[in-house]
Amino acid sequence: MLIFKAFSIVLWSETLMETECSCSHVENLWFSLTDVLLKMHSVGICGSDVHYWERGRIGDYVVKKPMVLGHEASGTVIKVGSSVTHLQPGDRVAIEPGAPRETDEFCKIGRYNLSPTIFFCATPPDDGNLCRYYKHNANFCYKLPDNVTFEEGALVEPLSVGIHACRRAGVTLGSRVFICGAGPIGLVSLLVSKAMGAAQVAVSDLSASRLEKAKEIGADFTVKIKNERPEEVAHMVEGLLGCMPEITVECTGAEACIQTGIYATRAGGTLVLVGVGPEMVTVPIVNAALREVDIKGVFRYCNTWPMAISMLASKRVNVQSLVTHRFPLEQALDAFETTRRGLGVKVMLKCDPSDQNP
Amino acid sequence: MLIFKAFSIVLWSETLMETECSCSHVENLWFSLTDVLLKMHSVGICGSDVHYWERGRIGDYVVKKPMVLGHEASGTVIKVGSSVTHLQPGDRVAIEPGAPRETDEFCKIGRYNLSPTIFFCATPPDDGNLCRYYKHNANFCYKLPDNVTFEEGALVEPLSVGIHACRRAGVTLGSRVFICGAGPIGLVSLLVSKAMGAAQVAVSDLSASRLEKAKEIGADFTVKIKNERPEEVAHMVEGLLGCMPEITVECTGAEACIQTGIYATRAGGTLVLVGVGPEMVTVPIVNAALREVDIKGVFRYCNTWPMAISMLASKRVNVQSLVTHRFPLEQALDAFETTRRGLGVKVMLKCDPSDQNP
Amino acid sequence: MLIFKAFSIVLWSETLMETECSCSHVENLWFSLTDVLLKMHSVGICGSDVHYWERGRIGDYVVKKPMVLGHEASGTVIKVGSSVTHLQPGDRVAIEPGAPRETDEFCKIGRYNLSPTIFFCATPPDDGNLCRYYKHNANFCYKLPDNVTFEEGALVEPLSVGIHACRRAGVTLGSRVFICGAGPIGLVSLLVSKAMGAAQVAVSDLSASRLEKAKEIGADFTVKIKNERPEEVAHMVEGLLGCMPEITVECTGAEACIQTGIYATRAGGTLVLVGVGPEMVTVPIVNAALREVDIKGVFRYCNTWPMAISMLASKRVNVQSLVTHRFPLEQALDAFETTRRGLGVKVMLKCDPSDQNP
Amino acid sequence: MLIFKAFSIVLWSETLMETECSCSHVENLWFSLTDVLLKMHSVGICGSDVHYWERGRIGDYVVKKPMVLGHEASGTVIKVGSSVTHLQPGDRVAIEPGAPRETDEFCKIGRYNLSPTIFFCATPPDDGNLCRYYKHNANFCYKLPDNVTFEEGALVEPLSVGIHACRRAGVTLGSRVFICGAGPIGLVSLLVSKAMGAAQVAVSDLSASRLEKAKEIGADFTVKIKNERPEEVAHMVEGLLGCMPEITVECTGAEACIQTGIYATRAGGTLVLVGVGPEMVTVPIVNAALREVDIKGVFRYCNTWPMAISMLASKRVNVQSLVTHRFPLEQALDAFETTRRGLGVKVMLKCDPSDQNP
Ligand SMILES: NC(=O)c1ccc[n+]([C@@H]2O[C@H](COP(=O)([O-])OP(=O)(O)OC[C@H]3O[C@@H](n4cnc5c(N)ncnc54)[C@H](O)[C@@H]3O)[C@@H](O)[C@H]2O)c1
Ligand SMILES: NC(=O)c1ccc[n+]([C@@H]2O[C@H](COP(=O)([O-])OP(=O)(O)OC[C@H]3O[C@@H](n4cnc5c(N)ncnc54)[C@H](O)[C@@H]3O)[C@@H](O)[C@H]2O)c1
Ligand SMILES: NC(=O)c1ccc[n+]([C@@H]2O[C@H](COP(=O)([O-])OP(=O)(O)OC[C@H]3O[C@@H](n4cnc5c(N)ncnc54)[C@H](O)[C@@H]3O)[C@@H](O)[C@H]2O)c1
Ligand SMILES: NC(=O)c1ccc[n+]([C@@H]2O[C@H](COP(=O)([O-])OP(=O)(O)OC[C@H]3O[C@@H](n4cnc5c(N)ncnc54)[C@H](O)[C@@H]3O)[C@@H](O)[C@H]2O)c1
Ligand SMILES: [Zn+2]
Ligand SMILES: [Zn+2]
Ligand SMILES: [Zn+2]
Ligand SMILES: [Zn+2]
Repeated sequence: MLIFKAFSIVLWSETLMETECSCSHVENLWFSLTDVLLKMHSVGICGSDVHYWERGRIGDYVVKKPMVLGHEASGTVIKVGSSVTHLQPGDRVAIEPGAPRETDEFCKIGRYNLSPTIFFCATPPDDGNLCRYYKHNANFCYKLPDNVTFEEGALVEPLSVGIHACRRAGVTLGSRVFICGAGPIGLVSLLVSKAMGAAQVAVSDLSASRLEKAKEIGADFTVKIKNERPEEVAHMVEGLLGCMPEITVECTGAEACIQTGIYATRAGGTLVLVGVGPEMVTVPIVNAALREVDIKGVFRYCNTWPMAISMLASKRVNVQSLVTHRFPLEQALDAFETTRRGLGVKVMLKCDPSDQNP
Repeated sequence: MLIFKAFSIVLWSETLMETECSCSHVENLWFSLTDVLLKMHSVGICGSDVHYWERGRIGDYVVKKPMVLGHEASGTVIKVGSSVTHLQPGDRVAIEPGAPRETDEFCKIGRYNLSPTIFFCATPPDDGNLCRYYKHNANFCYKLPDNVTFEEGALVEPLSVGIHACRRAGVTLGSRVFICGAGPIGLVSLLVSKAMGAAQVAVSDLSASRLEKAKEIGADFTVKIKNERPEEVAHMVEGLLGCMPEITVECTGAEACIQTGIYATRAGGTLVLVGVGPEMVTVPIVNAALREVDIKGVFRYCNTWPMAISMLASKRVNVQSLVTHRFPLEQALDAFETTRRGLGVKVMLKCDPSDQNP
Repeated sequence: MLIFKAFSIVLWSETLMETECSCSHVENLWFSLTDVLLKMHSVGICGSDVHYWERGRIGDYVVKKPMVLGHEASGTVIKVGSSVTHLQPGDRVAIEPGAPRETDEFCKIGRYNLSPTIFFCATPPDDGNLCRYYKHNANFCYKLPDNVTFEEGALVEPLSVGIHACRRAGVTLGSRVFICGAGPIGLVSLLVSKAMGAAQVAVSDLSASRLEKAKEIGADFTVKIKNERPEEVAHMVEGLLGCMPEITVECTGAEACIQTGIYATRAGGTLVLVGVGPEMVTVPIVNAALREVDIKGVFRYCNTWPMAISMLASKRVNVQSLVTHRFPLEQALDAFETTRRGLGVKVMLKCDPSDQNP
Repeated sequence: MLIFKAFSIVLWSETLMETECSCSHVENLWFSLTDVLLKMHSVGICGSDVHYWERGRIGDYVVKKPMVLGHEASGTVIKVGSSVTHLQPGDRVAIEPGAPRETDEFCKIGRYNLSPTIFFCATPPDDGNLCRYYKHNANFCYKLPDNVTFEEGALVEPLSVGIHACRRAGVTLGSRVFICGAGPIGLVSLLVSKAMGAAQVAVSDLSASRLEKAKEIGADFTVKIKNERPEEVAHMVEGLLGCMPEITVECTGAEACIQTGIYATRAGGTLVLVGVGPEMVTVPIVNAALREVDIKGVFRYCNTWPMAISMLASKRVNVQSLVTHRFPLEQALDAFETTRRGLGVKVMLKCDPSDQNP
């Protein structure tokens, strides 16, 4: 059995630790037939990583033992399980962090993201991949073409949230889309909406700088929110687009935005909830119901990596511009601090000391 | 121009009046090429008719001038407009009360119920058909086969709400369905669920007698609600069905039931909102969103009459048992009073003095 | 390791052999974590079993070594792999004969029937389950409720073909359906159409006795084919149903029936091809294309066992009446001969000497 | 009643005539409440216009009396019917040539293109709009934004065929698409595929120059067909794309291409038939059926103008490059001759002597 000096970024008791070999992750590094071992290259920091760090929990998921963080990742295959046929050492791959443990009813119908026993990187108790070496189910590692960088590979993860959201929303040719929130998730939803043929996209946020970024990557209109009532924001969006949007993608979790999303969406349209907010919210649900505005949630994603990689390979979407900061893995604390303070958009950790390129 | 003694049940100033020729309805009885004139036979009383009577409004729809009530109706063609080809005098028809006035974007995509300018019987300011003679767009009158009664024809209207709800919910072979509320709408949703292949249906209500009726027409399980919390009701439903239902059809409008519907529905399933409740409700929407339980509203129906009539003709569904009371049109006030007091399920008014049969 | 006297019905060189322990099936009886070992109870004979027996191949699938036949089966769990949690010894189960070997792109999107490397009982080189003891992937064994018989469990397999066909066709409330062929597959398609809410179903066949059976189990109309041209048959079907059917389910494979299916189906409808015919057929495809009649194939099924079992448990469909003959496993040759001669509908082999009940 | 000198291009006895006021079109110029009168600007010539000219018929549609040609058109409103609210004189509009005459079952479900009694420009006996002045149902005239040219407005018609095809095919983010034929219809399907997010599109044709054009407007790969067998072409396409395409859009009508489309399409994918070929074709339908490759036809389009115009306004698709020739209306014969000889891609006729700009 291989023993790696598995330098990892581990979270425990709301403290980030740089550690070697001390966590369950490495102890359990035994290898099944369908696993691959990866040398990690680039790992993006997600809001949820920071959230676990600061609060030790997200909803019912509680960090009860040391856990390696990180789930937006790419790396290079260095070893393959004996029944793996689609990958071989040297292949560069993007990692889908959720890999079902069982072939349950949800897997069978193609909605494996809903499988209650799914393995998911950096969701307690499952370790993530913010480390030097990492083992994963080969079926959820996807080979990157030569013209797709490791960082683009890592960004397939947040991009997938946008894809799943836009797909559930039914974005198509000529759609008018309203996106609440210009954080990383709002921005990828914007990119994906455009790539799926949306004619016009309006994006709202509280922050002028985030809206600036949205403009830069393709938003047709931006709405700077101050203290308008939801109906007012809905009205502003209609004014900008020249009609009510068929689709609203809510990427903030704020109660006010869910309300806005209902008022803003055209009869017969769809409001997709990506943002995760408080347990109970007060909403004008009868307004949605009587206008047949469907309200659909998003839990991560499924079946997105292949299409995302095809899209990146065809250069139809530019995600690289989302990366605003890079740190070597050793400076993970600075990297987390940057994300925590809301600087830039996406912070990348570079896990391979010998290759810190995108 | 024909002048009929158009005895009608007209609502004005929260008073029901039996009137002849006094309302706009009759004055405007000029005939377009695509109209038919009908001799009315059977008209069911709907909760909304009573609601207008008692309060003079439903949401933004306000009774501002005398309005004929009634929209669950069937009758006999006595005159056809010159371009009508599919009907002729003597044909017995069921009336779809909503007939679009314009070919707008909603009509073009087949969701004409969402057309904002639609004509709809007994929704202010449009007159209904609780009267002796009534003119309607022939395209929204559907010929009844000989083996379908006038009352079945009238019941296509409430049945259509159930069809539209179950279709939006995606009820199919083997579905487990939970229905909140055993009023007329809950009951038709039960009938339609079963007819679409649902394996098991559980129905909840506050009223034991309504649940009794639900059992009688096919409910597999009933849940008598007292003061349980929504999570508890959800748990009871799971216990009865042996699993969480894929589909919940909410037919009460009560906030507690919307909450229950979210907790009760299986991940990846659908909650359909048929009941119309308060403008703002507090709901665990993140619970729905993260389990991808879609929340879909229902506004009346579209494209249901042909399939409903086929189904009635094939004797695959028994709606006749929903009719618990019958009154001649002259006794409309007693009929409305019966509905107002919640007696029975469906009250029928018989508009043709010479034929009071079902 | 357990050694069973695995009495099996093995096919080799177009000869059926009753054999013990001689085939690969038993030699390879090692057990993975997710397997169950079953004591077989009832196994139906399928047209494909007979076809392999008579010709040694179906299309590209060639019998190149001894192969156990049988894939319509049910039995009792006698041993479970260590990671199996949903089953335990003593459970009665229906067996889904196709169990994917890999988590490939088709499995991930919920269409695992299309996975090119799927294991499938009695499709060369994979052994079937016409034997005393049989090992299968536990995820593809489904517990039978007490009120569902073993034979109903075995019949879930052909029923699943009908479910998959009707689901792909979009059969729903009020559908008018035309089914070509009243063999076992046509008959299950009839049962499923009705259970999904079809208002009227017309069935065609060359054989009067088969049409008799169709009538008996619910066909509204039957069409005895002699030597009519396809357009004529289409016209007859329209006459019987009173309109063109929205859906045609082709269950013969005959070129004439595919042609008929195109002519018969209403514009905007669907023709589902279940029957397997010659490699090349001549069809009026432009007639289908310009009327937007979609032509959809069916390859076995996926995600049907749970809904089929729910439906059987709810007594909404009667499949038991399809079983016309029963033989103990020892008389397998007689059983195959009965099927080969086209006698009755479904022939059942009873594998448990101590329990030959349905 | 207005009388216009309605200079038109009329077809009769396989002869094109420039005529004034002589045809039924003008005689019947009475005005309904929902009509608009248009001053025509740009009209594209379609293969079907040429086909009627050369043969006098397409399938069952036979030119039995003089008929104005032209159906790819845009113009300016000069008069509106009294119930028209969304347009006013001076508005520039694109014309949807198919306008239903009745609210039949197809219209009600949003598939009005299938309505058997639909009015359709330049399909016998209905006159087209290759003339100076033209009256049309206002509901099927769509206002052009200032930044969309008249020619782009006229090109919405062929573009709509591509939209309808790609929508029926389910083209989405990352799709790999194979298009047979690089005529105008193949080219718009290419543009639309890309706009809907297709990652890679391969296009085949017999003609090198047409493939050149395909490359120019965005094809990733082109396949020059000589006399390869269908399986060979399918194999070439797989080689180019690196995998089998999920979608094939057949735009030639050639039997060989339909066969190729079946072999080429990935299991679970869709073959859309746009091309109109011979009545009977011989195809490997069992290959499609057992791999669940759906075969869907396309009859014109429905619900495409709004999305096409949004897309053109957002500058997400460049159709203008399809226009290779322009002629004033007076030189219609030369224009038709150019199309007949297969020169260029799209030939535009300019109907307004005072404005011959794009
Ligand atoms: N459902 C899922 O599977 C999933 C996956 C990833 C992220 N998420 C959730 O998506 C949300 C967005 O993620 P992110 O990483 O972009 O977060 P983020 O915090 O970086 O961005 C949220 C943005 O919303 C803006 N915002 C807050 N209140 C607003 C208001 N009232 N109006 C307009 N804008 C407002 C903020 O200014 C911020 O820019 C989070 O709630 C996250 O938990 C959900
Ligand atoms: N969306 C639409 O297009 C549409 C059409 C028709 C009716 N509706 C609405 O559907 C609803 C039902 O209509 P109906 O005619 O059957 O009304 P109804 O009042 O006769 O029936 C409602 C039933 O819900 C029960 N109920 C109330 N609170 C409950 C609770 N907490 N738990 C369980 N049961 C409870 C009541 O006892 C009653 O039996 C109404 O809100 C009506 O406005 C909507
Ligand atoms: N696609 C799949 O996954 C799948 C699965 C199972 C079976 N099948 C196929 O389905 C078909 C039916 O299976 P089955 O077991 O019912 O077969 P079967 O041979 O018992 O029944 C076919 C019936 O079609 C009738 N028939 C033949 N020609 C006809 C004609 N011109 N018009 C009308 N009826 C005609 C026959 O008389 C017979 O009754 C077979 O082709 C089989 O291979 C396909
Ligand atoms: N279904 C509809 O509603 C609809 C609408 C418009 C056009 N159409 C049809 O679409 C088809 C295309 O229209 P168009 O205007 O582009 O026609 P076109 O004739 O200009 O183009 C057809 C192209 O196919 C090529 N081709 C012919 N045989 C081929 C082969 N074996 N392999 C590869 N390429 C081949 C030709 O070289 C030509 O470039 C026509 O059949 C037309 O009738 C259908
Ligand atoms: Zn994340
Ligand atoms: Zn009502
Ligand atoms: Zn079989
Ligand atoms: Zn054309």
